[in-house]
Amino acid sequence: MAVARRLAVLGVGLIGGSLARALRRAEAVGEIVGCGRDPAHLARAVELGVVDRAETDPAAAVAGADLVVLAVPLGAMRAVLAAAAPALAADAVVTDVGSAKASVIADARAVFGRIPRWFVPGHPIAGTERSGVEAAFAELFEDHRVLLTPVAETDPAAVERVRRMWEAAGAVVETMEVAHHDAVLAATSHLPHMLAYALVDALARLEGHEEIFRYAAGGFRDFTRIASSDPVMWHDICLANREALLGMLRRFQADLARLADAVEAGDGETLLATFRRAKAARDAHVLGRGGG
Amino acid sequence: MAVARRLAVLGVGLIGGSLARALRRAEAVGEIVGCGRDPAHLARAVELGVVDRAETDPAAAVAGADLVVLAVPLGAMRAVLAAAAPALAADAVVTDVGSAKASVIADARAVFGRIPRWFVPGHPIAGTERSGVEAAFAELFEDHRVLLTPVAETDPAAVERVRRMWEAAGAVVETMEVAHHDAVLAATSHLPHMLAYALVDALARLEGHEEIFRYAAGGFRDFTRIASSDPVMWHDICLANREALLGMLRRFQADLARLADAVEAGDGETLLATFRRAKAARDAHVLGRGGG
Repeated sequence: MAVARRLAVLGVGLIGGSLARALRRAEAVGEIVGCGRDPAHLARAVELGVVDRAETDPAAAVAGADLVVLAVPLGAMRAVLAAAAPALAADAVVTDVGSAKASVIADARAVFGRIPRWFVPGHPIAGTERSGVEAAFAELFEDHRVLLTPVAETDPAAVERVRRMWEAAGAVVETMEVAHHDAVLAATSHLPHMLAYALVDALARLEGHEEIFRYAAGGFRDFTRIASSDPVMWHDICLANREALLGMLRRFQADLARLADAVEAGDGETLLATFRRAKAARDAHVLGRGGG
Repeated sequence: MAVARRLAVLGVGLIGGSLARALRRAEAVGEIVGCGRDPAHLARAVELGVVDRAETDPAAAVAGADLVVLAVPLGAMRAVLAAAAPALAADAVVTDVGSAKASVIADARAVFGRIPRWFVPGHPIAGTERSGVEAAFAELFEDHRVLLTPVAETDPAAVERVRRMWEAAGAVVETMEVAHHDAVLAATSHLPHMLAYALVDALARLEGHEEIFRYAAGGFRDFTRIASSDPVMWHDICLANREALLGMLRRFQADLARLADAVEAGDGETLLATFRRAKAARDAHVLGRGGG
C-alpha cells in the first residue's frame, strides 16, 4: 500500500528513524529523504539504510516530497517548518510527531499566517528512553496508538493520508481534540517524566549518592527509566505544554502534600486508602496491557 | 552447605516463599516449616512444595527450629515475635526481612526487654510488585543485595549464620548501620513507592480517567509498576520508617516545587539543567546494572 512517492523525514532520530524503517519494511513509500543538522548522523542514517539520501537543508529535503514528517524536538518545529515552507510541493501533506499539539499548531500558524489545510498535527504514543537513529527500529509503532488532532481548517483528505501512513507502520490511529490531547499527555507522560527526573536529581544531590544508588532495586530502575530520556526533548515538551503540565503538577503537589501530611501524622487510614485506590486503578487499567 | 536443621518461615509470601524455595534448591536446610494466618494459603504453600509443613501458631512453627525468619509485614512483626518467643529454641537464630530496620529492632526490644544477641535484623533488597506464595521463586535473591543491620548487642556468630543463609540463596550480603539503612531505603524505595501510588491515585481521580489510562504508554507502565505493590505492606513500611521517609518526602516536595515554578516561569535553563543532571546520574549509577 503506497502512502507516498517521496517521504521527507525532518529529524532522523528514534521516532523519525523508526517511522522510516517501518514504512520501508511495509513497502509503503518510494524514496525516503532524511534531514538533520549533523552530517555525520545523517551519513549513519544512510549507511544503516534508514533513509535513501540525506540533506541538511529542510528546503532541499522537502523538494518534490508528497509527504513530510516533522520529527524534530518541539523547540525546533517552527524554525524547521519555516525553512522548509518555500520548497513544499503543492500536493504535499505535512504532519508532525510532537508530544504537545497546541504549540505545533501555533508554530504552523506563525509560519503560514493560518493553519494550512494540508497540515495534520499528530503524535505517536510510542518511544523508549533511548534516542538517535541507532535506536530506531521498524516495530516501534506496532499496536501503539497515534493521536491526530486536526483542527477546523484541516482537509479530511490530508488526515486520511496521514492515517494511512501510520497504519502502514502498524499503528492504531485515533483523532482527538487538541486541548484534550495536551491535557491527557500532561497527565500520563509529561508529569511522570517530571517526577522521575526530579527524583533522580534529588537523590543525586544527596551526600553519598553513589552509595545510595548502589542499593536501588529493580523497582527503582523501572521507576526511573524515563529519567534517561533526552533532556533537550523534554525541556522542549515542558515549555511547549506548559499550561497543561503546570495544572497537573500543581494538582499532584497538593496530593503529595496530603500524603506527606498523612505520613507525618501517622494517619495509616489515609495511606492505606490511597495505596488501595492506586493499586486497583493500575491493576484495572494498566496491568492487563502487557509487561505487568 | 547446611545452614539449618529446621528453618521456620513466619509469613510465606513472596519473600518468605522465595527464600524457602532458594534454600531448598541449595539443599541448605533440613526441614522447612511455614507459618501464616490463612490455612488455605498455607495448604497451597505445602502443595507447591515451598514448605514441608505448616502451622498457624507461631510458637508451634518455631518449636525445634534453629533458624527463624520473620517475613510478615512490618505491622505484624511485634505480635508474631511475641507469639513465637516462648517456644524459641536456645540455639535459635532469628532474623527478619523488613524494609525498615529501626522499627523491627524496637519490636524486638519491646518483646524481650532488650535486643537479644541472637536476633539479626535483615533486609533483602529484592521483590516484585506481586505478592503471595504463588509469586515466589527460587531465583529472586540471586545477585541481589541483602543488608544486615546488627546492633552492639548482636552476636557476630548469629550474623554469620544469617549471612550464610542468604549466601546459600544466592544473595550478596553486606552490613550497614540501622539509621543509615533506613535513610537509604527511604530514598531509593519508600519515596518512589509514594510517588507512584500518588501519581496513579491522582490520575484515577481525574474525570474520564479510564480514557486517560488508555493513552498511557510503556514509560507510564514502567513508572507505575510499583503502584501495583501490596497496599498493606506499604502502609506498614510508611508508618515503620516514618521519620526517614518524611525527611525525603519534604525534601522532594521542595525540589518538585522548584521544578513546577520553573515550568510556570518558562525557565528553560533550570529545567534543562535538572533533566541533564538526572539523566547523567541515572546513566552512570543505574543504567549499567541490567534492564536499561
